[in-house]
Order: sequence, then structure tokens, then C-alpha cells
Amino acid sequence: MKLLYPTSIVLDVDSLKGFAPTLHVYDAKKPIPDDLLDAEILVTWSNSPDNLSEAAKRMTNLKWIQSLAAGPNDVLNAGFDASKITVCTGSGLHDHTVAEHTLALLLCAARRLDEMKEYQLQGKWPGHLGGPQPDRPKGKFTSLRGANITIWGFGNIAKMLTPSLVGLGASVKGIARSNGVRNGVEVVSEDSLQKVLSETDALVMILPGSEATKHALNAERLKLLPNHAWVVNVGRGTSIDEDALAEALDNGSIGGAALDVFEKEPLPEGHRFYKTKNTIISPHAAGGRPQGAEELIAYNLRRFLAGQELKNVI
Amino acid sequence: MKLLYPTSIVLDVDSLKGFAPTLHVYDAKKPIPDDLLDAEILVTWSNSPDNLSEAAKRMTNLKWIQSLAAGPNDVLNAGFDASKITVCTGSGLHDHTVAEHTLALLLCAARRLDEMKEYQLQGKWPGHLGGPQPDRPKGKFTSLRGANITIWGFGNIAKMLTPSLVGLGASVKGIARSNGVRNGVEVVSEDSLQKVLSETDALVMILPGSEATKHALNAERLKLLPNHAWVVNVGRGTSIDEDALAEALDNGSIGGAALDVFEKEPLPEGHRFYKTKNTIISPHAAGGRPQGAEELIAYNLRRFLAGQELKNVI
Repeated sequence: MKLLYPTSIVLDVDSLKGFAPTLHVYDAKKPIPDDLLDAEILVTWSNSPDNLSEAAKRMTNLKWIQSLAAGPNDVLNAGFDASKITVCTGSGLHDHTVAEHTLALLLCAARRLDEMKEYQLQGKWPGHLGGPQPDRPKGKFTSLRGANITIWGFGNIAKMLTPSLVGLGASVKGIARSNGVRNGVEVVSEDSLQKVLSETDALVMILPGSEATKHALNAERLKLLPNHAWVVNVGRGTSIDEDALAEALDNGSIGGAALDVFEKEPLPEGHRFYKTKNTIISPHAAGGRPQGAEELIAYNLRRFLAGQELKNVI
Repeated sequence: MKLLYPTSIVLDVDSLKGFAPTLHVYDAKKPIPDDLLDAEILVTWSNSPDNLSEAAKRMTNLKWIQSLAAGPNDVLNAGFDASKITVCTGSGLHDHTVAEHTLALLLCAARRLDEMKEYQLQGKWPGHLGGPQPDRPKGKFTSLRGANITIWGFGNIAKMLTPSLVGLGASVKGIARSNGVRNGVEVVSEDSLQKVLSETDALVMILPGSEATKHALNAERLKLLPNHAWVVNVGRGTSIDEDALAEALDNGSIGGAALDVFEKEPLPEGHRFYKTKNTIISPHAAGGRPQGAEELIAYNLRRFLAGQELKNVI
């Protein structure tokens, strides 16, 4: 039995030894070599579409794909036979990195580091952003202390992020499919959008990409946010109506946006977001570096060999 | 008995009522009116040098100055008679805001938000900073998780900052005048600089301005830092030899610098720091907005009236 792991990530392969399958490395950007096509287990990470679609056609023994990506889209689009192959995501491997990046974007927005940089690049001192100034004036997002942060999409990343926000003095609420209290945070359903958005200083979007989440934040819902509210998106670009967001930024009906994901990536040259007001553009940099991949692979490998249910099955 | 408070900060004056002194507002940028010159208590915040030097000459009844600033320099420079007047600082009123700004600068540096902004302003996508990438490669400061953060000047701000850093997975050490464990953090004296600096991924300077701290971080000590280490200064500009730092930035012997304070502020147009590599310039914006001033004034007022020792006496 063969397990294939890609060159696209540095894995501590020694920690996977001792299991029955032999371990074989492959290049995720090239066709899988003929002598490895009989493998039953494929670990994927940033594989090229060609690599995946050819694997889908030729790896006829394949039983389990362990992706290290948060979402399964690349594997699902490659044409693997879902009736014969168990697909697992790398959900959980990106929680720390995405939570940290989200915090960075929120603080950058509140403390105006992006505006400072604009001055710096012109060789100017942004005096209006420093020195004595009012403490957390009403109608501005200037600090996490006392700010209402709403996280739309309240999964593991939100749970990882919340303690940092609370530690800095923010009040955190969540929006998800169902009401409840999760990890001590009040989570409301979309029925309560009107109330929760109207009280939000910064809205963090961590929604997965799907038909159900497409344009979840649309023109109508953007209008529910206060004029000073920031939108931070580290989920998927499709969850925001980008035209409506650009409009809201330019007419000042929201405070700003820090965007790590876009409907089209890379964001094309000349795209409106490069020029909209109070916009921070991050190049899909929140995740992209799985942490703890070996533990997940080993955990699932043990279960796979024992015929038990795997973790993160889609 | 009169207590004068300035217009330069919005205070909840009601919370100070019920004490013996009558409360009088004054403009911190103008001479204090004749009918208030007999006051015994003066609260100061971002007073103009003229206001203070004239107050020093003419307020002959003055017994206590409660500054809301972290440091007493403006009051000390004004010529008040220190033998007759107790001067208290606003130490503690800036802990939250400075700690938050420091965290913002650290995260901005680690997650390269400043570099992203440079691309954004050119209408370009900084692809090299996003997408799949190595997780925390050796010899780079890319995350607080697992990073060694050294805080030089381990007072209240450091204590406020530490839980956020630890929560994000950083290892925190302090440098101060004496060895010991403070709030669970190992603090070493300057005798151990060589070892601690050589193991530092980001050095946070929170030293007060004084002769003793002048150029604490000089050329020789900068050389002790690894090539990838960042320097963050939210204390006083004088604690760093700026020429040596600029040199280290431009020759790549350190990773970068996020500076909120400078030997001369505003940083003059054409200053070298506007062009040095991997530099983030923040216009003395970390503090500047006292929080909890009323509580400190009330606390000290009670003691002042009872003839007890005040808090934050210099």
C-alpha cells in the first residue's frame, strides 16, 4: 500500500513511519509518475489542476485523498470518483494562521497603519493620526477595546480568534446558521442580521465558498452597518457582492474594508478595489501554510487502516 | 480650593464632584485666566509649553500637578518649583492603547501588511506574499506563533501586552534593570543582552526617555540581533541610535523596524527613515489618549485631601 505526499510542503515524514503504507514523495505540479499511480492514499497541497485531473483519471486504486487545504474545491473540481474515494480536508490546519492574519487586519484598520504607510511613502508625517487625540470617539473604529466585533461564519477560526479579541477588550458576537452560545460567544442566526449588523464596529467574514454563501453581504445588508464599520473578509471572495462593497466604500456608507479574498484572484490590474477609499488589500495571505499536517495525516491514517471513520470527511 | 482641568480631554467631570475643591475648566493652549491662578491643583494634558511655563511663574498656591501623560517631561521642563509642588504622571492611563498599537505594529511586520500596501498603491497584486508558502521558515519573522519576542523596558505596558503575545503563541522575555520573573515572564538584566538579543525575532523597546536609556540600542547591540529580527519602538526615540538603526536596515543586518517614536518629532521631511528598507513609520500614535483619567484623579484627590501619599509621584 502506497501513500503519496507532495513536495509542496515540508513534512516531518519520519513521524509517519511505522504505519503499513510505504511513503512516496511526488511533485504536485507535474503528472504523478507511472510507478506511483497504484497508490491508495494521496495527500494533496496546492496541486496543479492538471496534476489532479490526471490523477483522477489514472489513479484507479485510490481510496482516500487527504487534502491539506481548508476547502475541498480543487479536489472536487478534478473529477475524482466520489463514490469510491473518501476526500478529507485540512480544516483546522489553518486556524492559527488565519486568526492571526485577521487580527492583524483588524488592528491595522483600527490603528490606521495603512493610512500611515501612504504618508510614509510620500515622505510625509501623518500628524493627524498621532499625538493627543480623543479616546475612542463615538462613530469611529479606533480600537478593539470596547468595539463590537461580529464574526460571520463561526467555526474553528472564529473560535481561535475570539480570545485575542476579548483579551484586547472587544465584545464578540457570531453569526451562523443556528443560534446558540459557542465557546462563550453569543451566536445568532441570519434572522437577527438587522440588529447585530447595526451594532457592529467591525464585521469579520469567515464564510466558506458555496452557493448558499454567495453574496451573503450584499448592498441591502451593507446598508445595515454603521457608517464607521469596517468589513474584514478572510473567508471567500464570493461571500461579498464586490460592486456593492466598492460603492459603500466610495460613498462612505461604511468605514473601510480589509480584504484577503476576492471573487477573482489575483485581483486584476486596474480593479476598482485598488482605488476605493480606506481599503486594505491582502493577497490571499491569511492561510496558505498548513500547521500540524503530520498529526492530521497520522490520525486519519490510523483510522483508515482500522476501517474507522476519518476526520474532516467532506 | 480650586482644581483646574483642561479642555484638551473629555473628562467625566461629574465623577469628580463631591470632593472639597471646586472644579474649573481651562484651555491648555492659552494662559490660565487670572481668576484661576490661585488654584492648588492643576490637571495637565497636552498643555502648550507657554501655558506651562507661565503657570509655573504665576500659580504661587500650586501644590499638586496631576499630568495625564505617561512621562513628566513637559511639566519638568516648565520650571515648576519641585520643592513645593507634587508632580504625578498619568502612568497606567496609556497601557491599553500603547499595548494595542505595539501588537498592531508587530502583526503588521510579521504578516507584511506594510509591503502589501506598497503594492496596492501601485495597483499591483503582491503575489509573493500570498498563496501557499512555507510555514514559519527559519530565519524569518512571519508569525507571532513560536516567535521569541523580547520586551526591553518591562513595566505596565509590557505586562498588558504580554498576554496577547502569549495567546498568539509567542515566547516572551523581558529586559529590565534587574533580573526576575514578572507576571510569569522571565526578565533579565542588561548583563544578559548578548544572549537574549541573539535569540530575538522581534525586539520591542518600551524604555522611558532619560540619560540612562539614551542610545540603549546602539550599533554594537544591533549587531547582536539576528538578520531577520524586527525592532519595534513605542518608548522614546532617544533610546535608539537612529543612524545605527538606519544603517542596519539598509544593509539588511536586521529584518525591519516599526517606529512610533523618534529623536526628533515630527520626523523631518527628507529624513532617512522615510526611505530605509522594511520600515514602518507611525507618528507617535501608540498612546495619546488617556483612559481612566477620572479614576486616577479621584484616587489621588482623595489622598491629597487626606494628606496621604499620591500615586505616580515622580
